[in-house]
Amino acid sequence: MAPSLNDKSEKVAEESMASQLQNRPISTIVIIIAMQTEALPLVNKFQLSEDPDSVFPKGVPWVRYHGIYRNLNINIIWPGQDTVLGVDCVGTVSASLVTYAAIQALQPDLIINAGTAGGFKAKGACIGDVFLASDVAFHDRRIPIPVFDLYGVGLRQVFSTPNLLKDLNLKIGKLSTGDSLDMSPQDEASIIANDATIKDMEGAAVAYVADLLKIPAIFIKAVTDIIDGDKPTSEEFLQNLAAVTAALDQAVTQVVDYISGKCLPEL
Amino acid sequence: MAPSLNDKSEKVAEESMASQLQNRPISTIVIIIAMQTEALPLVNKFQLSEDPDSVFPKGVPWVRYHGIYRNLNINIIWPGQDTVLGVDCVGTVSASLVTYAAIQALQPDLIINAGTAGGFKAKGACIGDVFLASDVAFHDRRIPIPVFDLYGVGLRQVFSTPNLLKDLNLKIGKLSTGDSLDMSPQDEASIIANDATIKDMEGAAVAYVADLLKIPAIFIKAVTDIIDGDKPTSEEFLQNLAAVTAALDQAVTQVVDYISGKCLPEL
Repeated sequence: MAPSLNDKSEKVAEESMASQLQNRPISTIVIIIAMQTEALPLVNKFQLSEDPDSVFPKGVPWVRYHGIYRNLNINIIWPGQDTVLGVDCVGTVSASLVTYAAIQALQPDLIINAGTAGGFKAKGACIGDVFLASDVAFHDRRIPIPVFDLYGVGLRQVFSTPNLLKDLNLKIGKLSTGDSLDMSPQDEASIIANDATIKDMEGAAVAYVADLLKIPAIFIKAVTDIIDGDKPTSEEFLQNLAAVTAALDQAVTQVVDYISGKCLPEL
Repeated sequence: MAPSLNDKSEKVAEESMASQLQNRPISTIVIIIAMQTEALPLVNKFQLSEDPDSVFPKGVPWVRYHGIYRNLNINIIWPGQDTVLGVDCVGTVSASLVTYAAIQALQPDLIINAGTAGGFKAKGACIGDVFLASDVAFHDRRIPIPVFDLYGVGLRQVFSTPNLLKDLNLKIGKLSTGDSLDMSPQDEASIIANDATIKDMEGAAVAYVADLLKIPAIFIKAVTDIIDGDKPTSEEFLQNLAAVTAALDQAVTQVVDYISGKCLPEL
């Protein structure tokens, strides 16, 4: 069926609005960070304060730190601590929920998912490296039925930022996401199939929701542990978390400084 | 710090409201169903119709079928088809998002997550059996750091319905959830640790969100494939999907008929 004239003019109006939005400076940013240790240095750096009247429903542990920094409306969203267990709400379920709720409440121009990650030395990753993801996919959603298999992998391109990448001299690599900190042989096979340099527990879920709601998203990940190295992941992760968080926060600050005053197509 | 008088009276008012809600007949039900094949017979049975003005944001594929059946406001929520790939949006990310969005939009008294599942014959499951879950947990979120490990497993009791269980003569068993249709040795070890009789791809995510927002939830799962049997899961699943869906729909209808006119504590 051909679109009616109304559909057509609606589409033209939408495209014109989208183009106007693209050509004004970025105004509102949502930064999704899974762990408080990763978030707090940035909260201090940008002088954000915790939202007293939460934009989120009563009872959820999600926290929004908010403030104005270099003319940008900055919102750091941390999924908070599990209400019973008291640990950070890591992983894809919490990440997708807070991404959804933050987009609904704040209508950001851009989402940044920042966090720590494991890296593969065979693909060039070292402890403390900060990567911008070129694309993201899942490695623990195996559905061996045609087309469902692709849905499970959930490969998504991130919002392309060639100028930011070049001007800030960041490393680039593919990001693979799963809900386990360790890596089973099946996960490893999927990570290799995803051609990933870095592995995290949230990225592909944030990308899925951002894509669903048509908000551009980028992914900044700092390497806390070498997955194809000698040390156990959890030990190396905890050992390097504080130091690598400093590198992550420096990179996120550089990215935010770079974004300030620019329009999306300039990134 | 001791709660102030205001906190106390607020708490008393909340408890009194909760008790009033518990003692009036159940009015609004949300039924989360991941696959259209599973949902459509129930949509027809309850004579529901697709919501023309979606309660969900523009662009998401989520579908609400709505209507009144035996004085119950019934909402079947299907996450829809992937906008690019056209397959049902199965798995924990979509399930948690639609559960969250449906609770926010509809404030149901009760959530029912209905769907097909794999079953373990060693735990007494047969093809076509319909189970009510006694509790739910994840089997593919391994985080080997103290307390984070428990967060990953995410064990949750379901809303207890002893009368419904007895009067409808349903089987009962523990449900374990993961994003893969197959089962890796690591998944298997976690499923055994979870003492699960049935395995699905959404339950624990629905339970997590329902618990977060304090909405009672129950889980009705029909067995399409025997995981510890001879046949490959995906083959057996596709072979039995239509027939087992009929058993699932019959059980969900019985449960809804049973709920009609009752208060939550009567279930």
